Order: sequence, then structure tokens, then C-alpha cells
Amino acid sequence: MTGRRPRTRCGRCREKAVIELRRHSVAFCKDCFLVYCRSQVTKAIEKYDMLAPGDRVLVAVSGGKDSLALWDLLIQLDWRADGLYLGLGIGGYSDRSGEGCAEFAASRGVTLVRHDLATEHGFTIPQAAGPPTSSRRGKGAAGGRSSCSVCGLSKRYVFNSTALAGGYDVVATGHNLDDEAAVLFGNTMRWDTVSMKRQFPVLQATRPGLIKKVKPLYRLAERETAAYCVLTGIDYIVEECPLVAGNTQMRHKETLNAMEEEVPGSKHEFLFGYLERASHLLEEADDHELTACARCGMVTQVPADGEQPVCAFCRTRARMAIQLEQAPPRGQAPPLEAAQAAGAPATAPAAAAEVTG
Amino acid sequence: MTGRRPRTRCGRCREKAVIELRRHSVAFCKDCFLVYCRSQVTKAIEKYDMLAPGDRVLVAVSGGKDSLALWDLLIQLDWRADGLYLGLGIGGYSDRSGEGCAEFAASRGVTLVRHDLATEHGFTIPQAAGPPTSSRRGKGAAGGRSSCSVCGLSKRYVFNSTALAGGYDVVATGHNLDDEAAVLFGNTMRWDTVSMKRQFPVLQATRPGLIKKVKPLYRLAERETAAYCVLTGIDYIVEECPLVAGNTQMRHKETLNAMEEEVPGSKHEFLFGYLERASHLLEEADDHELTACARCGMVTQVPADGEQPVCAFCRTRARMAIQLEQAPPRGQAPPLEAAQAAGAPATAPAAAAEVTG
Repeated sequence: MTGRRPRTRCGRCREKAVIELRRHSVAFCKDCFLVYCRSQVTKAIEKYDMLAPGDRVLVAVSGGKDSLALWDLLIQLDWRADGLYLGLGIGGYSDRSGEGCAEFAASRGVTLVRHDLATEHGFTIPQAAGPPTSSRRGKGAAGGRSSCSVCGLSKRYVFNSTALAGGYDVVATGHNLDDEAAVLFGNTMRWDTVSMKRQFPVLQATRPGLIKKVKPLYRLAERETAAYCVLTGIDYIVEECPLVAGNTQMRHKETLNAMEEEVPGSKHEFLFGYLERASHLLEEADDHELTACARCGMVTQVPADGEQPVCAFCRTRARMAIQLEQAPPRGQAPPLEAAQAAGAPATAPAAAAEVTG
Repeated sequence: MTGRRPRTRCGRCREKAVIELRRHSVAFCKDCFLVYCRSQVTKAIEKYDMLAPGDRVLVAVSGGKDSLALWDLLIQLDWRADGLYLGLGIGGYSDRSGEGCAEFAASRGVTLVRHDLATEHGFTIPQAAGPPTSSRRGKGAAGGRSSCSVCGLSKRYVFNSTALAGGYDVVATGHNLDDEAAVLFGNTMRWDTVSMKRQFPVLQATRPGLIKKVKPLYRLAERETAAYCVLTGIDYIVEECPLVAGNTQMRHKETLNAMEEEVPGSKHEFLFGYLERASHLLEEADDHELTACARCGMVTQVPADGEQPVCAFCRTRARMAIQLEQAPPRGQAPPLEAAQAAGAPATAPAAAAEVTG
């Protein structure tokens, strides 16, 4: 690596470069970088048949760089793409995120669908996760789920149910190359073959109640989606979710970043190598059997213990309904201003589905 | 991890502990630790049918902690185990390693077979690898192979041919848990499914010319084989091979060590998870077709280009025979005192075999 000279000219038009992509051994000027981003998204969509002409796409947006870049790119590429914002009740962070999504939608003249966990389902993420314990980072005290885990299952539930109810063909999420590599890395380090098998740029709707899910940004690195937003003037929320600090995926990203620094292209090789050379071998891995949740009718795993199947989202709602009716246990006051939603009803949407996490 | 108190009592007999194994959540006194080491080796041998009663075992020894611990453990467990030392011509390091092996053999009254690359095959590892280039760590200039690569293929060749010629049933190597995890990690980061498929605690002799290979230390961590030597008074060579610094496997070990520090048991989970849950899925991976080397008759890969099959060891011997007859090219003087072997003949052993790396 010693003595390497950064590339200062665009590899496409020889103008002055604004960004270097070491893993591709190339640099780009602004215009050519935007062409590159669009072509990577087009390539992703075509390679995995993510979208078909006429599809109505629901883009899950958080107000961050990835989801707003994705929404913008899909609009640029002439896809019919509405946004979906889910309020998670994470204090001022959630408020600012929601506003950012609304402003983006207004600036582009596109539709933003808004849902809210507290109002519609009776709990916020900080409430459901409880205060963090000292024994294990990111792991919540109440109910044993980390904030990231309960957030993930809630988002999957609401994205899926909203898309089904709204007649969308597909949900698109802003997972980038770094996200996908980090999740794959975590699953691979534990050889969780069931989760590995499920990780793919496209997840088909394999049964009624499930919506097709796609990740059109899986070919773009995190710093590339950030650069896309900066160069196109997208005013994204820079702050990280305050609950994410020190979580497992962040640690995996740090590990992969250190390896990338040492050998540029490591992350790309890991993710793409898996997709191209190994994922088909995982098809033989045992999978969870799926069934309908006994409470909401949505798709969930068949319990191993022969119990009635109740999906993780219904279990969380039920737990929170009990917990928030009681006086907060000592030292566990509902954090942030989200406690105001404590009395909201825990109703299931009429037509929704989920796969538990 | 904060506030964790180290275990100070032996988990088996409650005496004062001398070593804590965080991944097993246990500590041991000296005697119970030695019992643990022996039981882990026995478990490895039984789980994978590594050895059968009456087997003649050839232990590949380098004079380091792993191979001497392995030899000692096999002797303790009453296996018929001779040692094999291969002189690699890496200056004083090789001299001291050979002496260490000879002293261990003398102290235990066991047989040490000695071979020497320079005398028998006409080259040393530093000669075959050439001086390192600045562009890529550990990669040699001459012939394009790193010193670790040419060392690995030479050792595989000589271990295999010596065991066959000597009528041994099996070759045992001192690969420990850290070694196996690091190699698996490297192969997995590239999804080199062919190499992943071949990595197992036992490799059967799948065709004539191949010897069965076993790794009875795969359940013991690096610091455990070191502790075993210290506690049993084995005088092993502490110095690392001077050519290994900064090589890829060392980097992978550092990455895994950082993860282990964060979450004890990570390495164990990665290696054992692979062996138990994923390795069978790799069976479908494409494999290299094998054939006989056109020069020495040993097992080698069928070349992709339709050329005559010549094994990597024969190619190295041929290259070195030419190179060492010529004056050394500018700036590429044969390093170390190994140059003295330049005139040695490049003969193939009568009955030997290899699989190229």
C-alpha cells in the first residue's frame, strides 16, 4: 500500500475527480459518479429481476443517506416509488427523521406514507427494549430483546403489512454493500446457515401474506450513498440512531472497515463472493417452517415447542400492553418522551403479515 | 465484559488455578489442565476416527510449541508416533528448529526422521520465494509465490512422500484452533469454496499416492498449546519464522484475536460452527480434478489449460535449478547462507506424492 498515489482524474471523462473508489481502482467527477450510481442500481435491479415495468414500489425511508439516496435514484430511473416512514418513538431523533422524509417527499412531489408505532401499536422502541443493561451492549433489559432486534421486527411487520394493504408490488430498502457485508459477516461468524440462506438482494414473496423485498443499493458502499446525497444536495439526517451505538453490527462494520483499509475490495469480495459462489450451496440448509400467527393471521415461524404460533410483533404488543398499564418498575421508567403513548390501544392492522426475525 | 472477575480456582478440583479458558468459562490447575489437553486430543481423534489401534503415525515437527505439544501428547496417549523434521534452509531459524526437534526426540527416546530441502531438492525457501517486494507483503519477487506458499507446498510434498516411503499410516500436523480458524477465515472472506471444502480435521487418502492427514490439536487454542509446553517443560523454539511477519494468516489471526477479546468464544464458534453446521453444505462445491504429475508421478491438479500436468513442487525444483545455475539477477542475491545449496541436484524421490496447494 505504501506510496500509492490517489487518483485525481475521472476514469470516465478525465475531468478533475471528486471521489476515488479504491475497490474499483477508479475515480470519478461529480457527473460520472452519479452515472455510476444509477448504473449500479440499474444493474442490481436487472441482475436479480427486482422490479418489473409498472410495479408500484414502496421505499422504506428513515431520513438517512441510504434510504433517501435509494428513493431519489428510483425516481430518477422512472420507477413509481412511494416512501414509507415508520415513527419509532426514539425521541428527537425520530421527530427529525420524519421531518426529513416529509421535506424530501415535498421537494420531489412524491407520496410519503406515514405510520407510527406508538399511536398504532401502543409502544415505542425505547419502551419495548427497556433501558440497556451493563452486562451486554445494546441488549434491552425488559423482554430480553435488544432495541435493534425489536426495531427490526417492528419494521419488517409494518413494511410488509403496509405494502400489502396499499397494493404495492414490492418493498425496497436502502441496505448498502457495507450493511449487507456486515450482516453476512455476523451470520457467517456464527455459521447461522438459516439466516445466511435468507440473505439475498431479493427476497421473493414465497407465500400469501408476504411481500417481495429488494435491496437495489447492495452494489454501492456506504460512503458512496453518502457522497451521492452530498453531491445531489439531498439534506439527509446525519445523526445515527442513539440506540445503535456499540451494537453487534457496528462492531462487524469496524472489523470489515479495518480489513478494507488493509486490502481495498475485501468487503466487496466477501459479499459478492458469497452471492456468486456460495449462496447456492446454502440452499440445502434447514429452514424454519412458516405458518399463520394465531393472533393476527400473519406469517410467522412454527414454534419448536408445539405452542400456538404467535408472531414476535404480537408478542411484543402484548408484553407492552401489560407493562405500560402497570406502574413502571423501579429503575425502569419509560425512557424519553415516548412514554406519553403508553395508553394507546394495541390493535392489529386488518391486512398485514410478517416474518419474525 | 466490564467488571468481570477472573476465575482463580480450578473448575475441576478447586485448587489454585494456573490458566483460565474464557471461551469454556473455566480455569484449571496444572494437573487438571494437562488432563484437559489430553482429553481434547482424545476427543478429536475419536470424533473423526483420526487414528486406529496399531497405526504408525508420522508427526510433522518444526520445533515450535504446537508440533512438539502434539508429539508429546500422542506419546503420552500411547500412540506409535515418529517425528519428521524438514530443513527449510531459513538460516539460523532452521538450524535451531532442527536442533530443538532432535533434543526433544532424544529426551523422549523416540525416532526423528530428518529431511532437508537444499540437500535433497536443490533449493531453500528463501531462494525459492526470492526477496520480498514492496508492493505486496510476504509475496516473493521470483516466481510469484510467497515464501509461505512455497513453504506450504514443499512441506505437503515431503510429508506425503516420506510417510508413503516409510510405510506410515497417517501424517499428524500441529494445526491448532487458532490456525484452523484463521485459514477458514481467509478462505471464507474470499468464499474460496474449494479450499473451504478441503479444510477439515481429517483428510482421507482418497487415492493412491496420498496419505491420510489429521490435526489432533484443532480443539486446543494457541495459548493452550503454549501453556502445555511451559507446564510440561518442553523447550520449544519461541521465535517465529522470520519470513512469516505480516503474512495474510497473521493478519487474519489479529482480526480474530480482536473479536475474541470482545466476545470470548468467537473463534471457537466460527470454527466449530463451520465443522458442525456448514461443512456438509460445501460438499457440493466444485473441486479440482486430480491426476499424476508427468515428471514425478505424484498426485496433482489437472491443468485448466490442457497442458501436461506438472506438480507445483516439480515446477519449483525446475525453476530453482535454472535460477541457481545463473548468476543472481541484480538486486536478487540469494538471501541468507542458504545460497550454499545452489549446486545441489534436483532429484525426485522414488516413491512420493503431493497435492499442490
